[in-house]
Amino acid sequence: MKRIAIDMDEVIADFNGKMIPSFNARFNAHITLADLEGLTIQQLRPDIKEQVEEMIGEATFFGDLAVMPDSQRVIKILARKYEIFITTAAMEFPLSFDAKFRWLEYHFPFINPMNIVFCGSKSILNADYLIDDNARHFEKFNGEAILFSAPHNKHATGFHRVNNWLEIESFFYANQ
Amino acid sequence: MKRIAIDMDEVIADFNGKMIPSFNARFNAHITLADLEGLTIQQLRPDIKEQVEEMIGEATFFGDLAVMPDSQRVIKILARKYEIFITTAAMEFPLSFDAKFRWLEYHFPFINPMNIVFCGSKSILNADYLIDDNARHFEKFNGEAILFSAPHNKHATGFHRVNNWLEIESFFYANQ
Repeated sequence: MKRIAIDMDEVIADFNGKMIPSFNARFNAHITLADLEGLTIQQLRPDIKEQVEEMIGEATFFGDLAVMPDSQRVIKILARKYEIFITTAAMEFPLSFDAKFRWLEYHFPFINPMNIVFCGSKSILNADYLIDDNARHFEKFNGEAILFSAPHNKHATGFHRVNNWLEIESFFYANQ
Repeated sequence: MKRIAIDMDEVIADFNGKMIPSFNARFNAHITLADLEGLTIQQLRPDIKEQVEEMIGEATFFGDLAVMPDSQRVIKILARKYEIFITTAAMEFPLSFDAKFRWLEYHFPFINPMNIVFCGSKSILNADYLIDDNARHFEKFNGEAILFSAPHNKHATGFHRVNNWLEIESFFYANQ
């Protein structure tokens, strides 16, 4: 059974959907998704990088992110033919472990907790596919990279790109 | 650079050194290390398995385990020639994430947090060696298995067994 490793933030969890309004409220700003084209929020506003990371690093920040459209349904279908692992880079925000684990339990109860991985470097993953919005995670990954579109990765090239979960569904349907 | 994945409990962290006195105090018992030969504590006392798991699952349980003798020194030496990852099965006790992360930060500050992995199934690991006390983790592991002796694995065979960190030092010295 082939294995698909799936990232959380900006892939199954709508990080920007919470980060942008939280950022605007806290820093009295007016950024939009379009401002993040080619940039992370830390790259867009290096002047307040530490305060931004403090905001994201709060214990509950990741607890109430919205679920990305169609991700639950498509992952449920994929789980019939593939081993599904959720592989999230949690080490930069160690306080997020609990909230992320509970979020997965609540929104993806059909995923075996034994198939959840909190890591830093994703070079440690042994999987056939990695669906991720951060192209840097593909550098040392041995399997097939699937780049999930997000504003910050708009200019990344050289990877198979998908724009949403419907495209992931089609990709794996075609690869059967 | 080859990569060594290293488990935490009973490999670099002395789980039994805390579990046994905690168990005896809480359940008014008198078990010793010898009682755990070939058995986990849950297998030894299935009658109170749930209470035992509740005790181990407390948020702070893993925070003050002693460091296994020579592990810091030997890992520091190995880190010169190998990529070191700490790979711990934390998903059975989700409240342990924080305490485990802080424990590593405190006792192994020279290990890059990006090289810490909290997982369930270790089949997801892409490494050349896995040092672990649980033989079940070797089943689907592609690299070389190194079984770290613990009372519960006394009867496990078919793996390269080491009894302490001095033997790990010798093993990798011989494999250079």
